[in-house]
Amino acid sequence: MERLPGFRDFYPEPLPHPDVWSADARQYIFDQWRTVARRYGFREYDGPPVEPLELFTTKSGEEIVGQLYNFKDKGDREISLRPEMTPTLARMVAAHERNYKKPVKWFAIPQLFRYERQQKGRLREHFQFNADLIGETDPAADAELIALLIDTLRAFGLTSADFVIRLSSRNAWQDFYKQGGGHADHEYDFFQAIDKLERTREESEKKLAELGFSIDKVNQFIEDGHPTAELAGILQNLAARGLQEFIKVDYKVIRGLAYYTGVVFEAFDRKGEFRAIAGGGRYNNLVKLISGGKVDLPALGFGMGDVVLLELLKARGLLPKFDSPMDVFVTIEDESLRTISLKLVQDLRAAGYAVDYPLVPTKGDKQFKRAQELKVAHTVRAESDAYVRIRNLKTRDEVVAGFADAANHLG
Amino acid sequence: MERLPGFRDFYPEPLPHPDVWSADARQYIFDQWRTVARRYGFREYDGPPVEPLELFTTKSGEEIVGQLYNFKDKGDREISLRPEMTPTLARMVAAHERNYKKPVKWFAIPQLFRYERQQKGRLREHFQFNADLIGETDPAADAELIALLIDTLRAFGLTSADFVIRLSSRNAWQDFYKQGGGHADHEYDFFQAIDKLERTREESEKKLAELGFSIDKVNQFIEDGHPTAELAGILQNLAARGLQEFIKVDYKVIRGLAYYTGVVFEAFDRKGEFRAIAGGGRYNNLVKLISGGKVDLPALGFGMGDVVLLELLKARGLLPKFDSPMDVFVTIEDESLRTISLKLVQDLRAAGYAVDYPLVPTKGDKQFKRAQELKVAHTVRAESDAYVRIRNLKTRDEVVAGFADAANHLG
Repeated sequence: MERLPGFRDFYPEPLPHPDVWSADARQYIFDQWRTVARRYGFREYDGPPVEPLELFTTKSGEEIVGQLYNFKDKGDREISLRPEMTPTLARMVAAHERNYKKPVKWFAIPQLFRYERQQKGRLREHFQFNADLIGETDPAADAELIALLIDTLRAFGLTSADFVIRLSSRNAWQDFYKQGGGHADHEYDFFQAIDKLERTREESEKKLAELGFSIDKVNQFIEDGHPTAELAGILQNLAARGLQEFIKVDYKVIRGLAYYTGVVFEAFDRKGEFRAIAGGGRYNNLVKLISGGKVDLPALGFGMGDVVLLELLKARGLLPKFDSPMDVFVTIEDESLRTISLKLVQDLRAAGYAVDYPLVPTKGDKQFKRAQELKVAHTVRAESDAYVRIRNLKTRDEVVAGFADAANHLG
Repeated sequence: MERLPGFRDFYPEPLPHPDVWSADARQYIFDQWRTVARRYGFREYDGPPVEPLELFTTKSGEEIVGQLYNFKDKGDREISLRPEMTPTLARMVAAHERNYKKPVKWFAIPQLFRYERQQKGRLREHFQFNADLIGETDPAADAELIALLIDTLRAFGLTSADFVIRLSSRNAWQDFYKQGGGHADHEYDFFQAIDKLERTREESEKKLAELGFSIDKVNQFIEDGHPTAELAGILQNLAARGLQEFIKVDYKVIRGLAYYTGVVFEAFDRKGEFRAIAGGGRYNNLVKLISGGKVDLPALGFGMGDVVLLELLKARGLLPKFDSPMDVFVTIEDESLRTISLKLVQDLRAAGYAVDYPLVPTKGDKQFKRAQELKVAHTVRAESDAYVRIRNLKTRDEVVAGFADAANHLG
């Protein structure tokens, strides 16, 4: 029996097959995400992996349904596996915002699902680090969130030689559009044309011309790259933190989604080999929309998927190996010492060490081979109920220690 | 917009409403599960949260479908949200078992889903710690797994006064059944009757009588509680580890599921206030069944859900509070020092501290109140680009330190 197309199995390392994914690398990535988010004062939340379909169509319109993993449940409800976290976040914040001091700084690590037409190797799920800051309009909030994004990537060993945050602003483009005589009704078409400029140049140029904008004028605006007051404030704030080398204004970025209302940004690898590592921006109207007008809070956030990040870390040689998870192997060569050896295993585990041992009688050389495969630092052998022999597999030093004293010799 | 019935929202503490769940407590529980599993040499794995329906019906028969969160996807596949992890595990192990040394010791923390008729407050999802040991028939493997179960519960502060593992054996009951003249065809009916003895006594007695077994004889067997050689080996092994006080033979436990083949066990609170905390046993035929006969490996495992565990920890006062996640609050009273204060925030976070600060100009007393709400140990204030003032909120001691030296004064 096979798993469903577009889904991943996560195995312990070393990996048995190139077609599967590392559960250890996944956990490593989650750990870094959590650690940095907590340092920044972001608190973890989570919601259901399935939600009413309406939650997602309210935000993104009916056309989103074509990309959703949606279905009817046995209670005849239209529901969907979550394609993104922000609507759930908006729902949750709107329900209980009075109980939380603003700004609310929250993060989540949801698994997200899309049912797009299957392309070879295309995944239908991924994990995404979502960090959001709710209840503050000041660009200081945008700077705080972008600093978190930068420090999250740095936690993996990535430097300013590896990635850059391209910072832009819907407001800047809105001003440009208005000053160029654009009509409010077609503003989003204009944003879409800018968004696609890098990928489908010709089509975008045609659309821009239709809207009354010459490509030269658009290009000039992009090349000037003059930061708005808002963006200047963000750059200054990040410079105060010593993070200026990680960010540049780049008006080519505008983000496709309709719901962004102000600052937008994307993290890219400097070499341009991969899709965006992360992306986000302001969405000041979403909480109001999702709550049916009951709660109105400004907000911004970003999402960072596990797949592109993993590719980048691999390509840059920054992904650790996780094939050495054990500390100690307790050998049992004399079966009459098994009972006392089990006590030794128990004591060492209670002291916090990751310990393995032969479950059943096993030849000495096989045990030693197993210890080497597990890349343990030490083997420990009970010599009696009074003494143990500890061997450092690297230095080959051996010491004999009192039974209760074993853990103190494991460094 | 509401979340779906039977699903949970997880919020940061302090919780805003009794109807929501703590994301912090959930993470605390996951952390303990992971920590103890790793000490025991169990490696993490995961599979997709949706699988082909057939994976679950192959194991449990078509009658399981009534309880599943199943549907047809857009590719016309019959699929289901996973109701349990073991079929996925069996599928994954069977696919790549040659690449892993036996015994395979793996764990996972899946979210599992059931679509049962909605009862008030009844959940349709929960998280479950799954630990499995594959490739070893010796009862030493059963003892290792049960020791992990015991130490996992102990990691939460639970003692032998709080819980006990009730150990039983399908083999023991099988022998009893055969010696009593039971026919192999009705063996599973017999097991079911034993399983329901505690809940629906009368019905079970009737069924047992039909099968030719007097309730007195059955009760006598339970009361004798004479351990089989296999169970005696497990008890001895656990006693060697000093864990004998956590386990007792109890033949009233037999586990409902058809697929168990040998030792079975359940963890219960001693006061009998809650449903089983965890349950598991041997399932030596499942890998063969799921792999269509290609791979034949003995196996055993247990599952421990987050919901009963959480109830128990709350009832015993063992659940920590998680309302103090920040270490430091950087105050900014003089806005001309904001730039240097941002540098201070950055430095302290880089040193590993969880740091918050006022994003925008804020009155001094409000900042101090916020620091108290966050229950930080210290406030730190930049006095200039050369000095900082550090205040211990508990002792009220204040020290002035060099700017680069601030982190060394935070204990």
